[in-house]
Amino acid sequence: MSVARIAVVAGDGIGTEVTAQARKVIDAVLPGVDYNEYDLGARLYNRTGEVLPASIQTELAGHDAILLGAIGDPSVPPGILERGLLLKLRFDFDQYVNLRPSKLWPGTTSPLAGVKAGEIDMVVVREGTEGLYVGAGGVLHKDTHAEIATEESLNTRHGVERVIRDAFERAQRRDRRHLTWVHKTNVLTHAGNLWSRTFAAVAAEYPEVTTEYQHIDAASMFMVSNPQRYDVIVTDNLFGDILTDIAAAVTGGIGMAASGSVNPERKYPSTFEPVHGSAPDIAGKGIADPAAAILSAALLLEHLGKHAEAARVTEAVAAEVASRTPGAPLRTAEVGDRVAAAL
Amino acid sequence: MSVARIAVVAGDGIGTEVTAQARKVIDAVLPGVDYNEYDLGARLYNRTGEVLPASIQTELAGHDAILLGAIGDPSVPPGILERGLLLKLRFDFDQYVNLRPSKLWPGTTSPLAGVKAGEIDMVVVREGTEGLYVGAGGVLHKDTHAEIATEESLNTRHGVERVIRDAFERAQRRDRRHLTWVHKTNVLTHAGNLWSRTFAAVAAEYPEVTTEYQHIDAASMFMVSNPQRYDVIVTDNLFGDILTDIAAAVTGGIGMAASGSVNPERKYPSTFEPVHGSAPDIAGKGIADPAAAILSAALLLEHLGKHAEAARVTEAVAAEVASRTPGAPLRTAEVGDRVAAAL
Ligand SMILES: CC(C)[C@H](C(=O)O)[C@@H](O)C(=O)O
Ligand SMILES: CC(C)[C@H](C(=O)O)[C@@H](O)C(=O)O
Repeated sequence: MSVARIAVVAGDGIGTEVTAQARKVIDAVLPGVDYNEYDLGARLYNRTGEVLPASIQTELAGHDAILLGAIGDPSVPPGILERGLLLKLRFDFDQYVNLRPSKLWPGTTSPLAGVKAGEIDMVVVREGTEGLYVGAGGVLHKDTHAEIATEESLNTRHGVERVIRDAFERAQRRDRRHLTWVHKTNVLTHAGNLWSRTFAAVAAEYPEVTTEYQHIDAASMFMVSNPQRYDVIVTDNLFGDILTDIAAAVTGGIGMAASGSVNPERKYPSTFEPVHGSAPDIAGKGIADPAAAILSAALLLEHLGKHAEAARVTEAVAAEVASRTPGAPLRTAEVGDRVAAAL
Repeated sequence: MSVARIAVVAGDGIGTEVTAQARKVIDAVLPGVDYNEYDLGARLYNRTGEVLPASIQTELAGHDAILLGAIGDPSVPPGILERGLLLKLRFDFDQYVNLRPSKLWPGTTSPLAGVKAGEIDMVVVREGTEGLYVGAGGVLHKDTHAEIATEESLNTRHGVERVIRDAFERAQRRDRRHLTWVHKTNVLTHAGNLWSRTFAAVAAEYPEVTTEYQHIDAASMFMVSNPQRYDVIVTDNLFGDILTDIAAAVTGGIGMAASGSVNPERKYPSTFEPVHGSAPDIAGKGIADPAAAILSAALLLEHLGKHAEAARVTEAVAAEVASRTPGAPLRTAEVGDRVAAAL
């Protein structure tokens, strides 16, 4: 019997290259994983016009997790692969916890003056199945002067409560036990009020976790002026999208940014992928940094309950990155080899 | 006859202190302005429960511009003064251009390593009367497990086109003539598509302006990794709220961040105010930095067609800030005196 069944969607551009390293590292720490490869992304779309055939989606559902590289190519109009694959998986597989740790690792440099490795260490718990991402909206009187376009943000007590509870659980397990929730309650009063009441109700169950609230604009500013202050952050889908990219920027860019789109109940497979894109400009050259993909594999192992293995992978990546010679050219495969060898 | 009729809403906390300096400076550069003071904000609300009495709003409408200090106090629940005063003025007075310049001035320090004064110089043109700020939405099944809360973003061709045209006009008048538009077209496909088609149509009228598009998450990241790249940015109400706070952060915080909520046709008065809040913690001590308030007064003068006066005020503020002794205590009134004396 296999220790885990993992669907591999390496995808476009550098996705293939970095995913190969992530697999190499998983194999080094957890032998016996069953992989099934799925060729989804720009190639399939350009060949067939399909993004996620129903039969493939059914097959994906039979896995313990999905390891994803990167999706996207200039040949495909914006939105098609994002909505048809990435967001469809998040919604159909009820991946309501979008997990994005940000850490300033030794060997990496923050663009912020005076901020030292180790000082930034946060995880953003972004809601993954609601808000403005639901696709509700439309257009009326298109291409006339009377045209109107709407986008609707849908937020349920069910959806808000479960992601807030997940964030409290994570905060509870961390040293600082601090949870910041971010919204825009002074403008988005309806959704903000639902978040506010729900947060207060769940907070009562976690007396050991200290909490604070910030508006998204203030949080975006603090993310630059004082990112050290954050431990765990919970926020909605769109605010989380923005905040996690600022968090990635202040920890030295998306080179180390891992993410998981998680269904905590494991009723459906969760997806793990680097935050970076397919980077067509450097694809095929073997120079993409696989650190974020490998760290995403560590999140995958963690999700499957392989805590020790996950910790070892994370440490090995950290050590590899810390040992790099500044300015020296990076080879994708060599990074994977070094991390795997260290395990 | 007075040279201009300005309504003064000094507001709460440090609002009174910094607004006094802004008036001092206006008087030094443009004698003969007629001021009318309106005591709006937390005090009025706590005394009467009213935020903006209709009769006052009618009086405000009779002015050429509104000079606003800061609104807000911990004694008032969040949202009341924001929606009832600041946002109400933006909507009722059709202030569709929310103007926010960000500059790294000599004498100020960016939190970004290696970024030098003069290198960041951008202006964000934020839409001010549409999007998620319209207040459309509601709550169903409140306080039950079936609760749902909605927020609706409304975007019209009318509203999107006029703010994009305004941004092109501003870009056209600047040295670099570069305009970036920011949205999230891959997720907010309906509104994104309206913005996209409208931007392309207006761009055809401005062949001298170079343009680019960025998703809000990418723009938030670039705002940290490379803010020097921006010249003019145009974006929607909520994205503009977030982006301008990141822009303020990378140019050293909100100490120098001025803003105008502008009705370009001057059919209604425009509001000019510092981006910072009422800062109750330092109110009444005479130590608040009035630079942002005075720079907002410069935007006001510019809007009234007093270009030379506006430029002189901006230069005087820049010189005053550059002449400050790092670490020396700041006195609100002395800053105003020095700037006024220089004019
Ligand atoms: C590609 C896009 C739809 C996606 C998002 O907005 O969630 C991406 O930016 C991300 O953060 O995973
Ligand atoms: C106070 C608040 C309603 C306002 C906004 O969100 O527009 C403020 O943040 C701003 O940027 O002027």
